[in-house]
Amino acid sequence: MPYTIEQVKALVREFPDFPSEGILFRDIFPIFRHPEAVECLVNHFVDYIKALGKAVDVVVGLDARGFLFGPLIAIKLGVPFAPVRKRGKLPGQVVSVTYMKEYGPDVFEMQADAIESGKNVVIVDDLLATGGSCKAAEDLVAQMNGKVILNAFVISLAGLEGDKKLRAPVYALMEC
Amino acid sequence: MPYTIEQVKALVREFPDFPSEGILFRDIFPIFRHPEAVECLVNHFVDYIKALGKAVDVVVGLDARGFLFGPLIAIKLGVPFAPVRKRGKLPGQVVSVTYMKEYGPDVFEMQADAIESGKNVVIVDDLLATGGSCKAAEDLVAQMNGKVILNAFVISLAGLEGDKKLRAPVYALMEC
Repeated sequence: MPYTIEQVKALVREFPDFPSEGILFRDIFPIFRHPEAVECLVNHFVDYIKALGKAVDVVVGLDARGFLFGPLIAIKLGVPFAPVRKRGKLPGQVVSVTYMKEYGPDVFEMQADAIESGKNVVIVDDLLATGGSCKAAEDLVAQMNGKVILNAFVISLAGLEGDKKLRAPVYALMEC
Repeated sequence: MPYTIEQVKALVREFPDFPSEGILFRDIFPIFRHPEAVECLVNHFVDYIKALGKAVDVVVGLDARGFLFGPLIAIKLGVPFAPVRKRGKLPGQVVSVTYMKEYGPDVFEMQADAIESGKNVVIVDDLLATGGSCKAAEDLVAQMNGKVILNAFVISLAGLEGDKKLRAPVYALMEC
């Protein structure tokens, strides 16, 4: 049975005080229990990206939940998918960036040949919170002289103003 | 341009001494630079699974590289995808299992409502090495009274005999 995008949104579950007290966790995995819901979600992103009217050359996804739908979006667009991972996970020559997390610095990497100079990139992840990890992904793309044309999320947390940290426009399916 | 499965295999790159000396790392990410190669890989797994002649109810993928193609396989089969993650990443009620890694114990979890009793499960991951993490996934499925009918990998490392640790049959696209 085909899903509407409103039905997809309704699948996201809320868990208060996870992973720690005061945090309201949004769980996107229920979407993946319904293959037609995943297809609807992916088609929604693809339609949004196509409507921008810009050529897209690469989809970049953040480890780990960006891996769930990044390749699906890339295949529908007919373009490569490239991963962002924590330090030490990707072999070969890498570009890297240090960013601040709540409890200290962390390092993200991409394979240095993942994006050719001048290429247009869409970054995907499940959640935009403070924007720190997506900003790090933007920085990695910039190191390879790629151009981020969109940061796409399933959920954006209102009030944290993560979008203000980012250079490229933000699209989120849901604002919470 | 459509890919043959032999062309997909040829995309896997080898990196000696990564992540540490003496380890020959196989990198599957080059496959994801070619959307037609990903489609060929996914179709190959789906055809193999269908040829088993058994109903498949859930595809289970291991964090993080199992997330890259697990949802793709699940969608093609028209069934749910369920994740295995490290402790503390999944909200709600979970089942958990402790398994031994090289440097000590680690804990894997699944959401406790991810698999209904009696359902047939295919576990997917990129690499079968010693089999420890896949065995942990099998144990999680067993805790929910699911039945693993296949463990499917892109690469199996010969000589480590990871398949001997597993209860269910193993299929690997490549033996290295």
